[in-house]
Amino acid sequence: MKVGVLGPRGTYAELAARSQFGEKIEVVPYPMITNVAEAVARGDVQVGVIPIESLREGSVGEALDALAWIDVKVQAEVVVPISHSLLGVLGAKLGEITQVLSHSQALAQSREFLRKNLPKAELTEMTSTAKAAEQVGKRKQPHMAAVGPKALADIYGLKVLSEDIQSGEFNITRFFCLAREDSKPTGRDKTSIMFYTAQDRPGFLHEILGEFAVRNINLTKIESRPSKKALGDYLFFIDFEGHREDPNAKEALNSVKPKTAKLKVLGSYPKRY
Amino acid sequence: MKVGVLGPRGTYAELAARSQFGEKIEVVPYPMITNVAEAVARGDVQVGVIPIESLREGSVGEALDALAWIDVKVQAEVVVPISHSLLGVLGAKLGEITQVLSHSQALAQSREFLRKNLPKAELTEMTSTAKAAEQVGKRKQPHMAAVGPKALADIYGLKVLSEDIQSGEFNITRFFCLAREDSKPTGRDKTSIMFYTAQDRPGFLHEILGEFAVRNINLTKIESRPSKKALGDYLFFIDFEGHREDPNAKEALNSVKPKTAKLKVLGSYPKRY
Repeated sequence: MKVGVLGPRGTYAELAARSQFGEKIEVVPYPMITNVAEAVARGDVQVGVIPIESLREGSVGEALDALAWIDVKVQAEVVVPISHSLLGVLGAKLGEITQVLSHSQALAQSREFLRKNLPKAELTEMTSTAKAAEQVGKRKQPHMAAVGPKALADIYGLKVLSEDIQSGEFNITRFFCLAREDSKPTGRDKTSIMFYTAQDRPGFLHEILGEFAVRNINLTKIESRPSKKALGDYLFFIDFEGHREDPNAKEALNSVKPKTAKLKVLGSYPKRY
Repeated sequence: MKVGVLGPRGTYAELAARSQFGEKIEVVPYPMITNVAEAVARGDVQVGVIPIESLREGSVGEALDALAWIDVKVQAEVVVPISHSLLGVLGAKLGEITQVLSHSQALAQSREFLRKNLPKAELTEMTSTAKAAEQVGKRKQPHMAAVGPKALADIYGLKVLSEDIQSGEFNITRFFCLAREDSKPTGRDKTSIMFYTAQDRPGFLHEILGEFAVRNINLTKIESRPSKKALGDYLFFIDFEGHREDPNAKEALNSVKPKTAKLKVLGSYPKRY
């Protein structure tokens, strides 16, 4: 089974893919979230795994755009706890690190550790935690270190200088598994939808949410995102409890559709949290 | 007048500050959005200017958190069109650039130009466009270039290799001016609020939005953001048209307050778009 993930090798998306589909999958890394979704739409891979939101940093804009505009379905959600390590070359010492590379979210999540232990280190943002580890492995400088999942140490020949360096508070990232079809009802499901309106008038969103409220359907998330046409012109993303084939969810979606300029049911999938 | 901005010198936040307050202000750069808000709360600066959302990339998470938890008010909104240039050292030539540095949003916004003109260049993410320009100015390598506002060329001794390299589509960033007090009514205002609920039940958000809908108050933005306690536990940010002292806005806010665990009126300010 071919699974596309946001690459390079060893990112949290790969961990999420392995936790969902096991160790025997063939992982195909792509440089951007959009590329993963496109590969699924073309059928180059059966499934694609992309980060959708983090407890601390919020939604991933590129993922919302991919869901809105690329012809794929959400088949599953996977939740992965985030644990960062500080990784250096063999022979590196924690006290001698002067440059730390990582993805901006990972640097932000490890800010307290870095401030306390390496207050003078220069922080360099990279496109992914794996790219940072790759760079440190390539340059072989004992003053350089990368922040990312421990699994990167093996892939890029690094050693773990310090484990669990993320801020004391619990952190998790939610991933979506994208496929050509979504999932069958299990009795404990969630559904994600996207919609927008051509008109800008008071009460539009209130009316839409009313279709869920009157049917006692619980919303687990709502998000507006610029439609990229004008500031203040938004796409809305809503997650609700239930499967799109449940009679009351079906009724709610049928009532919402004529109120929008476009409604896209992104998919129904087993609820994981 | 001292104005704190997201630093270093020459970022779009500084351009926004000058467009709002003129050229005679003393600009004080801070490394993070949180630091700008804290400086305003302490009274170290009279005003702070922070990016709140971009048409293409959506809301800035750190800015929403700062608004939620730091004791400051939104006094004004400023909208700045984004125009990126490619900046190199004196003697650099466009065709010889092999490394391009910038903030991840600026690199994303210039992706088409870079793909077409510098398909082999390595892209390096920095914490800001200004930091990228500073680095290029310091290293003095003719193969390096930075992407950012043209104004950075003068500040860091660089020359403009190419102008307006952002993607053809129009792009703007919205900034908030933070102060100890918000603004008086002008007759054409907006108000920003933040709230959360202790309970997770169907219809909560629908009820809240109903208080605005029945009073014919137009919402211009809604956003949920993880509260950082559990995934699915959200803060809500809403912007609506009108001043918090307008009778119907006052009524709506008074009706919303008892439905929430916390309601913070972030401020009322003249509507700019």
